[in-house]
Amino acid sequence: MLRVTMPRTLRWGKCKMGKIAYPTKTDPGRFFEDYHLGEVISHAVPRTVGAGERALYHALYPARGAVHSSDEFARNVGLPASPLDDLIAFHTVFGKTVPEISLNAVANLGYAEGRWLRPVWPGDTLRSVSEVIGLKETSSGVTGVVWVRTKGLNQRGEVVLEYVRWVMVRKRRRDVVVPVHVPELAGSVPASALVVPKGLDFRRYDFALAGEPHRWGDYRAGEVIDHVDAVTVEEAEHMLATRLWQNTSKVHFDAGAREDGRRLIYGGHVISLARALSFNGLANAQFIAGLNAGAHANPCFAGDTVRAWSEVLDRAETSAPGVGALRLRLVATRGAAGHLRGEDGKYLPEVLLDLDYWALVPI
Amino acid sequence: MLRVTMPRTLRWGKCKMGKIAYPTKTDPGRFFEDYHLGEVISHAVPRTVGAGERALYHALYPARGAVHSSDEFARNVGLPASPLDDLIAFHTVFGKTVPEISLNAVANLGYAEGRWLRPVWPGDTLRSVSEVIGLKETSSGVTGVVWVRTKGLNQRGEVVLEYVRWVMVRKRRRDVVVPVHVPELAGSVPASALVVPKGLDFRRYDFALAGEPHRWGDYRAGEVIDHVDAVTVEEAEHMLATRLWQNTSKVHFDAGAREDGRRLIYGGHVISLARALSFNGLANAQFIAGLNAGAHANPCFAGDTVRAWSEVLDRAETSAPGVGALRLRLVATRGAAGHLRGEDGKYLPEVLLDLDYWALVPI
Amino acid sequence: MLRVTMPRTLRWGKCKMGKIAYPTKTDPGRFFEDYHLGEVISHAVPRTVGAGERALYHALYPARGAVHSSDEFARNVGLPASPLDDLIAFHTVFGKTVPEISLNAVANLGYAEGRWLRPVWPGDTLRSVSEVIGLKETSSGVTGVVWVRTKGLNQRGEVVLEYVRWVMVRKRRRDVVVPVHVPELAGSVPASALVVPKGLDFRRYDFALAGEPHRWGDYRAGEVIDHVDAVTVEEAEHMLATRLWQNTSKVHFDAGAREDGRRLIYGGHVISLARALSFNGLANAQFIAGLNAGAHANPCFAGDTVRAWSEVLDRAETSAPGVGALRLRLVATRGAAGHLRGEDGKYLPEVLLDLDYWALVPI
Repeated sequence: MLRVTMPRTLRWGKCKMGKIAYPTKTDPGRFFEDYHLGEVISHAVPRTVGAGERALYHALYPARGAVHSSDEFARNVGLPASPLDDLIAFHTVFGKTVPEISLNAVANLGYAEGRWLRPVWPGDTLRSVSEVIGLKETSSGVTGVVWVRTKGLNQRGEVVLEYVRWVMVRKRRRDVVVPVHVPELAGSVPASALVVPKGLDFRRYDFALAGEPHRWGDYRAGEVIDHVDAVTVEEAEHMLATRLWQNTSKVHFDAGAREDGRRLIYGGHVISLARALSFNGLANAQFIAGLNAGAHANPCFAGDTVRAWSEVLDRAETSAPGVGALRLRLVATRGAAGHLRGEDGKYLPEVLLDLDYWALVPI
Repeated sequence: MLRVTMPRTLRWGKCKMGKIAYPTKTDPGRFFEDYHLGEVISHAVPRTVGAGERALYHALYPARGAVHSSDEFARNVGLPASPLDDLIAFHTVFGKTVPEISLNAVANLGYAEGRWLRPVWPGDTLRSVSEVIGLKETSSGVTGVVWVRTKGLNQRGEVVLEYVRWVMVRKRRRDVVVPVHVPELAGSVPASALVVPKGLDFRRYDFALAGEPHRWGDYRAGEVIDHVDAVTVEEAEHMLATRLWQNTSKVHFDAGAREDGRRLIYGGHVISLARALSFNGLANAQFIAGLNAGAHANPCFAGDTVRAWSEVLDRAETSAPGVGALRLRLVATRGAAGHLRGEDGKYLPEVLLDLDYWALVPI
Repeated sequence: MLRVTMPRTLRWGKCKMGKIAYPTKTDPGRFFEDYHLGEVISHAVPRTVGAGERALYHALYPARGAVHSSDEFARNVGLPASPLDDLIAFHTVFGKTVPEISLNAVANLGYAEGRWLRPVWPGDTLRSVSEVIGLKETSSGVTGVVWVRTKGLNQRGEVVLEYVRWVMVRKRRRDVVVPVHVPELAGSVPASALVVPKGLDFRRYDFALAGEPHRWGDYRAGEVIDHVDAVTVEEAEHMLATRLWQNTSKVHFDAGAREDGRRLIYGGHVISLARALSFNGLANAQFIAGLNAGAHANPCFAGDTVRAWSEVLDRAETSAPGVGALRLRLVATRGAAGHLRGEDGKYLPEVLLDLDYWALVPI
């Protein structure tokens, strides 16, 4: 699995120590031709998450959702305790996939068919497994697109989260030909496939304690909500966050990794920022249950002031008592809110994120 | 409770999506005429605090108090374990009040009658309730002063902390007249009203482990202590701290929220910095028991180097074994220590904080 | 133990409050002539460490070692749970010694005879004790070298860690003569003296989950490993880290403490950064068991991009099942990896750290 190549940056000529070159022990990451359709990759470094990760999540993002903030509130809606934020689960599972999936990725192209299947509780240990479900060379001949379905598992082997993502990866050699397989992906997760956390019962939901009076029935498809608040992002913050998820992608940490000398902010950091900002107007969208689609429209850098707005796309019922689902478009922008696409149909340059997800909301 | 107004920043003209304007779901905060004397406001989002918040407190502030640092030390002075820092309790309770009390505040004018009534233990869940106890329009006609008495409650409904604060809030309309009521507030908390944590016994206090030999009897009214150490503050630090307390005030996070483009540092961040710096000279002032008064004399910004000095104002005995109380003035400055007021009686521009509090100290 | 001197920075002339000067309550730190051979110093402020410190460690450093990341992985190698990172133990123990050992230190000169004797578990409370084992005035006459052997103890009084370090400390007065005693220190910790955590059994070690396939037998003395990854350091990060260890050295926090106005990064921060970066190539070097020697070759400042490389110095067996030891040189550099010393035998200016340690590795 690991490539044996010469180290790329070690300058033997200037090094006074080494005389013999050993095969490198380090991992240069995979290239397009290293993936095989149907291959299952077990990602390394299982991670136990808990009270510390929860506190850091609150320090890093303006998250205020009551279920993820208070054991008492969680118990009042039928859960044994406050679970960890759904995005802590996502980032932890995602972070583990970076060494094998996106270390040499040129771009993170999309998400689909994401579902949160079980809450993650403090003390749970997460690991990730990905299956290669699609491969397609790009017309440039120097890159290819790799589709993977990633599952996050807890210490009992239960799947807590699954999603498909696809990335553009560099080829090692231009002349390699890889059979094309483009997977068929659902345009969105059907409401009937959403999984509600076991025991969840929103019938005694305390709207005053949660922070807003708006119920599932108060939202209408087409409604647009400006979340008003904004956060100016610092280098230290996004690096702390991205390291916390053990995401090893160089571009987030090493000012020398990109030609422009700027550290690219992990797209997931923008997701968490926007989701947390959306509390203001969507305080009762307590759980993320499904991820339909997502685009990191433009790169985000330290110094950017991130805002967010949401559009209600759809509503659905669930079989759980008092629990409805809202399909939401969550958009993060640099600067003023409300923007999305230009006359040409392309994302405007100030748009950072366009995320389509399902949230669970009290009816 | 929530205002229905048009969103302020959503630019419909440039947005290609929305056609219909819905009543906004977001909270623009209260204005002066939205408060009513005697009104009781239950603030949203209860918060469970624990080991993660404790570790972050140590990362954010140079706090070294032995009771709040070590379970063993805490047990040796009669407590079941190390409680969370008294200022973690204060910031958490305060943060919850921001959406209803100070989102549109022009200035945080003062504190009075603050008392810590019970320790907060890891795993406790805190929420806040405020009563409007005073209202007074300012001479400008565009703002008013609102006094609230805030209580922090744990999951058993016990009050862990209470204090009065008053803020200057914008009026929505100039022509509204609100009946004046200025509350009578004690100039300081009498020593007899201070509450010592149940079980606290300082008779076997280990001064060597605590870090300094100075007892209650070693301090004299009028004594001034320069705490020597200093911290240069970074944007990322004060934002991490302020978010950790779920304080949503825009001016701390959004570089565009103020005309000068600077992010104002949360006054409580300066309180915690100064209190932590005061370890050097007041290592045995283990608990904050009362808050007599406080002024955020000048704004603090990233890049400021914060120092602190204290003046001993008074001493008092308590009924708990080995436990005395010191009334202290804690002053934070930008730059050199020792400054307070100019010839005109006004705070000098380098003074950031002037806090008058009671601490519990071994006799 | 504490000096009674006049406060250094309090400007009485400008202070409108104080009339009487009291003996200062603050600690100016020790000078060379304050140390006595054989003196045992119990350092203050015991500290309980746990889940919060662990999460912060992952946020501050790109640490990915599986034993310290996952309770499940740790149980699979014979431990009751995941211990805290060996460097959390080191930094916590070291931080406590700063007020008495290095507050007035001009330079941190070296380490020797370091051994990790017991894992530190979440909930453990650490304190530090140092014995002065050597004293020697420098030729300048204004400083002296102090050698101390520091032990970190847990709440049961068990030694979890011990090491020797020596620092250059200022003299208070030039004319004081202190008897010379230079301790004899081992050039390295013999492999036979290394202590393997009780119960550790690497025979069922899961290399795939750990992240790399390289066993003890795959490494050869003389082999050099470039760890490839790099981190550009921010002020907020190193201050959060250094405060977390309750290290009070002014130069790390106060931009005014050094003449150049720069905050010096705590050398231990560079150790943790380099050790975490070394995952890439040394993912299975799970434990630090011994510290043979160490030099902070050049100062590190915010903005530096830190890289790391390792040289395998030696291999040894241990009596624990499946557990081998590797002696490693870990070098951190600013900029390109592979550099160490110039033609003159001196460290090149880009070298930050040269650390010689023993790690425990599956056979």
